[in-house]
Amino acid sequence: MLQNNGQIAIEFTTIPIFSALNKAQFHTVLSTATKIDLVAGGVLFRQGQHANHFYFVHDGQMRLSRLAEDGSEKVMDIVHTGQMFAEAVMFMPNRCYPVNAAAIQPSHLVAFDMETFRNILKESVDTCFRLMSTMSQRLHVQLNEIDSLSLHNATYRLAHYLLKSVPENSAGQTEFTLGYPKNILASRLSIQPETFSRIMARLKRENIVVVQGNQIVFHDIPALRKLLSE
Amino acid sequence: MLQNNGQIAIEFTTIPIFSALNKAQFHTVLSTATKIDLVAGGVLFRQGQHANHFYFVHDGQMRLSRLAEDGSEKVMDIVHTGQMFAEAVMFMPNRCYPVNAAAIQPSHLVAFDMETFRNILKESVDTCFRLMSTMSQRLHVQLNEIDSLSLHNATYRLAHYLLKSVPENSAGQTEFTLGYPKNILASRLSIQPETFSRIMARLKRENIVVVQGNQIVFHDIPALRKLLSE
Repeated sequence: MLQNNGQIAIEFTTIPIFSALNKAQFHTVLSTATKIDLVAGGVLFRQGQHANHFYFVHDGQMRLSRLAEDGSEKVMDIVHTGQMFAEAVMFMPNRCYPVNAAAIQPSHLVAFDMETFRNILKESVDTCFRLMSTMSQRLHVQLNEIDSLSLHNATYRLAHYLLKSVPENSAGQTEFTLGYPKNILASRLSIQPETFSRIMARLKRENIVVVQGNQIVFHDIPALRKLLSE
Repeated sequence: MLQNNGQIAIEFTTIPIFSALNKAQFHTVLSTATKIDLVAGGVLFRQGQHANHFYFVHDGQMRLSRLAEDGSEKVMDIVHTGQMFAEAVMFMPNRCYPVNAAAIQPSHLVAFDMETFRNILKESVDTCFRLMSTMSQRLHVQLNEIDSLSLHNATYRLAHYLLKSVPENSAGQTEFTLGYPKNILASRLSIQPETFSRIMARLKRENIVVVQGNQIVFHDIPALRKLLSE
């Protein structure tokens, strides 16, 4: 049992997996909480071990790793303060940890009993639906974030590439011939073709560049520079 | 019913929400599939309308938007070819579309019956668990992707900022005084403090820079330049 349930409970309600529970269910899960303190390098569980608990990082940093076929260790995930881990194992038919978990720095975790959580879900399809609703919305939010980060990143790389071809203090109209066909340039800049088209469409729409075949006419270099600090 | 079930069915099996279904369940859901063709600007559903279907974009692009309080339209999401949308509504207690959906370009969608999918889940906790397992793993994959994109993006911005202070062709050891305290610099570059520390730790570990208070000594400018093309 936790020494200070009340205070820690407030943090937990912000965790998606707990927000699907009603008050009684939440307290049932919370009653299974135990504190675990790990020193740097301390091992929490090993790959293949039967999973009885899932974890919340109260403070610290955990490394989740797998043994590769050549015997080397491959880091799959680094889990930070405020994050949950191993809860996905709870839903798997074979409930074995697919990774090793060890503390990178001294870490304080809270462990929750998987069976208790599974039983709550098994007894209530409504709770399953609430949890699937939370997860499903969260998946959309994350997908949007990935989309926006990828686009931002790609816009930065393309603007940076284009600006390298422009004289340092140039502000007026300048012409430039792309060194590669557009698909090769996109690939060299690690930009998906669809994303590349979206960025070029934006640059044209905002009248920053005009594209004629492989020829690019810069209309607004200051605006292109501004993209770098967006 | 779809004209060409066989061919389209193969694509569907790659969709996470369908991968949780067994063969019989999958065919039950597929039997509810109907094709919808939209012209550019065509409206599929309106915010607040009762939700009976969720959708897969076979080809095209859809805009999901909400009416803001001032009457303006706020785009919440752009859905592309190969993506699913409105399936999160299926799990919500109030099954109303929270957005307007309209085609940006001529689009071909496949609509699936929500009630059929909900009934399959309600009748089988095992299927709920498989779906939660899929979603849960997907959430972890996306979180890692966000982490990696954020870090990559932030590393690029910091390297770019640092390199601006270095003479164009400099390759040897150079010193540089940060214009701002580190936390202000991180904030100006839109980098989370934790991410900033992780990047600085990497730059030190790889012996690219040495930091002494606000003084930065560049040990390896070519390596710093290389980070921009990573």
